[in-house]
Amino acid sequence: MSKGVIFSGMQPSGRFHLGNYMGALENWIRLQNDYDCVFSIVDLHALTSSYDDTSKLQDNIREMAIDWLSAGLDPEKNIIFVQSHVKEHAELCLLLGMNTPLSWLERVPTYKDKIVNLGSQGKDMHTYGFLGYPVLMAADIMLYHANYVPVGEDQAAHLELTREMVRRFHTLYHCNIFPEPQPVYSKAKVLPGIDGRKMSKSYGNTIPFGASPEEVTARINQMVTDKTRIRKTDPGHPDDCVVFKFQQVFNTEEAPTICERCKAGDIGCVACKKALAAKMNALLSGIHAKRQELEKRPDYIQEVLDNGAKRAQVIAAKNMAEIKKVMNVL
Amino acid sequence: MSKGVIFSGMQPSGRFHLGNYMGALENWIRLQNDYDCVFSIVDLHALTSSYDDTSKLQDNIREMAIDWLSAGLDPEKNIIFVQSHVKEHAELCLLLGMNTPLSWLERVPTYKDKIVNLGSQGKDMHTYGFLGYPVLMAADIMLYHANYVPVGEDQAAHLELTREMVRRFHTLYHCNIFPEPQPVYSKAKVLPGIDGRKMSKSYGNTIPFGASPEEVTARINQMVTDKTRIRKTDPGHPDDCVVFKFQQVFNTEEAPTICERCKAGDIGCVACKKALAAKMNALLSGIHAKRQELEKRPDYIQEVLDNGAKRAQVIAAKNMAEIKKVMNVL
Repeated sequence: MSKGVIFSGMQPSGRFHLGNYMGALENWIRLQNDYDCVFSIVDLHALTSSYDDTSKLQDNIREMAIDWLSAGLDPEKNIIFVQSHVKEHAELCLLLGMNTPLSWLERVPTYKDKIVNLGSQGKDMHTYGFLGYPVLMAADIMLYHANYVPVGEDQAAHLELTREMVRRFHTLYHCNIFPEPQPVYSKAKVLPGIDGRKMSKSYGNTIPFGASPEEVTARINQMVTDKTRIRKTDPGHPDDCVVFKFQQVFNTEEAPTICERCKAGDIGCVACKKALAAKMNALLSGIHAKRQELEKRPDYIQEVLDNGAKRAQVIAAKNMAEIKKVMNVL
Repeated sequence: MSKGVIFSGMQPSGRFHLGNYMGALENWIRLQNDYDCVFSIVDLHALTSSYDDTSKLQDNIREMAIDWLSAGLDPEKNIIFVQSHVKEHAELCLLLGMNTPLSWLERVPTYKDKIVNLGSQGKDMHTYGFLGYPVLMAADIMLYHANYVPVGEDQAAHLELTREMVRRFHTLYHCNIFPEPQPVYSKAKVLPGIDGRKMSKSYGNTIPFGASPEEVTARINQMVTDKTRIRKTDPGHPDDCVVFKFQQVFNTEEAPTICERCKAGDIGCVACKKALAAKMNALLSGIHAKRQELEKRPDYIQEVLDNGAKRAQVIAAKNMAEIKKVMNVL
């Protein structure tokens, strides 16, 4: 039996890397077995920061769909769709915005951070759409009566705002139609980049999601290990080693032994990397193969997204009718 | 041949009075013969200030439709519909908002005025939806590729903003799909209330639109005339007389003669009011009769609005497809 409805979305902002996968998608794969999941490629959210260059948007959407399916998201179990294909997201966003105080939006902690951050990259984020990001997110969640939302740390404030908007809506329109969505936190598995910094495309230190076993192995071989260790028999410092951080994520069983042996100078970096490559490729070679296969089937990808939109649409239309009824907007 | 597309809307914020009619609707009746007109009952705009009490919204929409048809707006010639029935308004509003600078919205002159004005009536207008009023208005106009918009003085700034948004859209998405909508100014026929102040429901000094001849005559008889004139033979001061202001609007032919005769003490207020009542009822009794008839035909009103929404929908869907294509949101 389903434990409730989950809504979650990701912005199609370019090719996935392994850090994205371990951060969110792996979590979704697990949740899909226990919940009614609605997973959306939120292209409208992407426009809040990328309205000035949309040339790659459709490619990014298709790549994201391929990534999701390769990773094991099941389009039968879940509703997988593109946000802009269901007009009710825009409609509910507009209606919710009517009663959303500007102060609520201006005080979201990530709002000012992002303005500064993206501002330093030359983007002017003082737009109406970007200010309304949390309203659109609330609309996404409320439209499907979601009970749970898997969130990262930086979205917790957004979800709190959604709950406030639910309560305000219920008070204003004398009803009780939305669940107050609760966060689902996952064990944060943060992967560093292969150079030890944050994994990020702009640093060129990522492992692309869906990489071939050869690519994975090559990237592991480039990983920075303990710089103080010259000879294999020198005692290592796993805590300062990128490879070991990956062992802790991908090779949980052997990680404690490897840790001890490294500290004792009993295993060298080459052998350690080899063990990691074996484990990572055991997991990732299947994803790679699936990705290769799906890339050759654009019609199937389109069909999955079309079907998903149709299924989302049915729920969205039903729920919007109820929302408009309590608001006397018919 | 049509001179172009006109879009215009009115908020369904309660029963019309004659001041509304002379201000805007009379103008529309004239325009409908020369332009392709799209006239919308903009319920979503009404929500920007009335989100907290929507209990009369549907009644107000129906009354407004009856008013429009009674006044002579032709549902065959024009597209007459309720804004919220066409989801593309919300959709385009969301898309346009992505690239609308907050500063553009904050500097609209009416924005701060209205916040203060409605604030003094106890309404908190610091909402996301109210700030976005001009974005929604731009979406209304751009969605139908309107060439012209009949505007009152206080909306000229909004229309200028729409033109800026058109230009920005064309620059960002390297296209040229929207006309820059131009204002259509009408001769301003401002009717005072029967007490000489501004005609306003809150002053209780209106003549309701669609009033019966008896009501019209009774309201004329209550009108304030020149207070310095005691006897019929005293010289009158038409410029200080509410009745004369109405003569200038409803009895243009006889007004100059009446003016002279009043100043000469040759016509009394009773006769003057009688002449006005005759002229006003010649115009308004037809509207009253039509209104009476339409009030008995709710199904017909519904049918007009349904048909209008269908016709608007066809244009909106076609234009949205083009808009999304140039934005790469498909």
